[in-house]
Amino acid sequence: MSQAPASLDAYRDSLSALEGPDQTAIADAEARNAQLTKPPAALGRLEDLARWYAGWRGDGRPALSNPQVVVFAGNHGVAARGVSAFPTEVTVQMVANFEHGGAAINQLSRQFGARMDVHALDLDRPTQDFTQAPAMDDADVLTALGTGWAAVDPAADLLVTGEMGIGNTTSAAAIAHALYGGAAEDWVGRGTGVDDAGLALKAQVVREGVARHAGGDGLNTLARLGGREIAAMAGAILRARHEGIPVILDGFICCSAAACLHAVNPAALDHCVAGHVSAESAHPALLAQLGLTPLLSLGLRLGEGSGAALAIGILQGAIACHSGMATFAEAGVSGG
Amino acid sequence: MSQAPASLDAYRDSLSALEGPDQTAIADAEARNAQLTKPPAALGRLEDLARWYAGWRGDGRPALSNPQVVVFAGNHGVAARGVSAFPTEVTVQMVANFEHGGAAINQLSRQFGARMDVHALDLDRPTQDFTQAPAMDDADVLTALGTGWAAVDPAADLLVTGEMGIGNTTSAAAIAHALYGGAAEDWVGRGTGVDDAGLALKAQVVREGVARHAGGDGLNTLARLGGREIAAMAGAILRARHEGIPVILDGFICCSAAACLHAVNPAALDHCVAGHVSAESAHPALLAQLGLTPLLSLGLRLGEGSGAALAIGILQGAIACHSGMATFAEAGVSGG
Repeated sequence: MSQAPASLDAYRDSLSALEGPDQTAIADAEARNAQLTKPPAALGRLEDLARWYAGWRGDGRPALSNPQVVVFAGNHGVAARGVSAFPTEVTVQMVANFEHGGAAINQLSRQFGARMDVHALDLDRPTQDFTQAPAMDDADVLTALGTGWAAVDPAADLLVTGEMGIGNTTSAAAIAHALYGGAAEDWVGRGTGVDDAGLALKAQVVREGVARHAGGDGLNTLARLGGREIAAMAGAILRARHEGIPVILDGFICCSAAACLHAVNPAALDHCVAGHVSAESAHPALLAQLGLTPLLSLGLRLGEGSGAALAIGILQGAIACHSGMATFAEAGVSGG
Repeated sequence: MSQAPASLDAYRDSLSALEGPDQTAIADAEARNAQLTKPPAALGRLEDLARWYAGWRGDGRPALSNPQVVVFAGNHGVAARGVSAFPTEVTVQMVANFEHGGAAINQLSRQFGARMDVHALDLDRPTQDFTQAPAMDDADVLTALGTGWAAVDPAADLLVTGEMGIGNTTSAAAIAHALYGGAAEDWVGRGTGVDDAGLALKAQVVREGVARHAGGDGLNTLARLGGREIAAMAGAILRARHEGIPVILDGFICCSAAACLHAVNPAALDHCVAGHVSAESAHPALLAQLGLTPLLSLGLRLGEGSGAALAIGILQGAIACHSGMATFAEAGVSGG
């Protein structure tokens, strides 16, 4: 499935036709795990990760050798409401920083041997202020989804999707509020560092946006309240599913993109793990809605895919153990 | 300080003459961190790690390129009491597995680019059953401390100490109970997988041992209730301090070794971070006694240094960001 769906309804069809993991590979991985030179379950969550990865790669003794990190950048009309601590010109400046290798995500991608790509989505044409109009019309969101879809390297064996976009914690909060209800205040946080007044303003903006754009499904919510980089992450996550590429989700904004897929089909994220829980205050609640338990909790709140990239090392460790360890028989070790 | 101390009193002297981190390097690291292309504090604990590592390396923009993992193995007289789910011959079998590259710690060391060494300490001569006699006399513990001291590569820029020794969660629990009081039940756990009866037996054995060997300082406790691999870890951790090599501590047993140093001088572990909190039930309480917050919590309970080795990747990520990122000025990005 290399061609991106051609309409939002085609995305809905794509989301309804998802295959599960390879059960034979999972059984093979479980059988192998039971023979490895360690007490049963002594590697804890690393064993769960190996089983999960084996299932999605269709291989009971998989390799993890070709991770890909993709960072999408977009600009948000709602930023004009003053919801961010940074000016919007930072988005394009940070894209240049990504391209020149100077950002945190560049260092982390290099550290863990990941290919990194950056895609700037129409930065000179911000989305609409969602308190006034849908952030994107159907053509806009379709283009952004397609950019994400096309960004995935089918030869990758792991995907991390990251983002940059001044104002995008506000969009992510609006998506979460629209999908899960509660109060706007439950879903807004300090983003890159707004003060109390900024936080109250974010809640007001989210409340207005969600009131204006109630109804519709996950893809409608994505279009009306999201942003191009958020839609691109959703497209990439869905493409990865069809290519059998496991995904490590990043923080609050990445998870808001994933949530739009999950709202259409609750099985849509079965090929994903949560790389970390960020310091953005609503991220734990969003992870809970998605049924995901984060691998790391280190107080990151940068975005860019940084928390997920850090978790690549954990998954690499898990696969190295699973696929590289000797069995009791091979090592001549007495079983428990 | 390349020569190991020649007596337990010389170790005590060594522990009382500890230098702190390089404050100039810490200031340099803080100044650099403030200029990096990210919102303030957005990398969370990675920023703390970079500052800490800079201080102990004496370099405000350090590299981390030469990590060393050392695994020590020992046999325990107390194992004859039936406190482990595995037979004692597994210790020597696992040493062969380490030497042939088949264990979890081999895979993790390779994954994170660490040199790995294994030292088997008199496996054919278990320590005494500490319910009957001191586990080690002063000459024995001095030899084990010296093995750990000598195992550290002065050219390493990070150290992980791991262990293997059937019965050693019982020794570790006895050390913790002796140092911190409470009830024996507070400090025993299931180790590699004992059942409820085994757990009750471990508590009884720990209670007997601590009652027999009350008093003395951390080094006395180490000798009377510990094991050779535990003493070797303590020697390696102390040597690393004198060489300016930061340490990532592993699980319950490694932390019991560290606790013996901490009992002599509470500043003795300032060059250490806790790599993870393990599934061994008393590890959180032991970390709390040491004032350490673990980097990872993934349910590991293998030992070997595995949790600490996994955390090498986190520290590598932290240093890669700190030392590799562009500053706002270099990247032409507007500050917050």
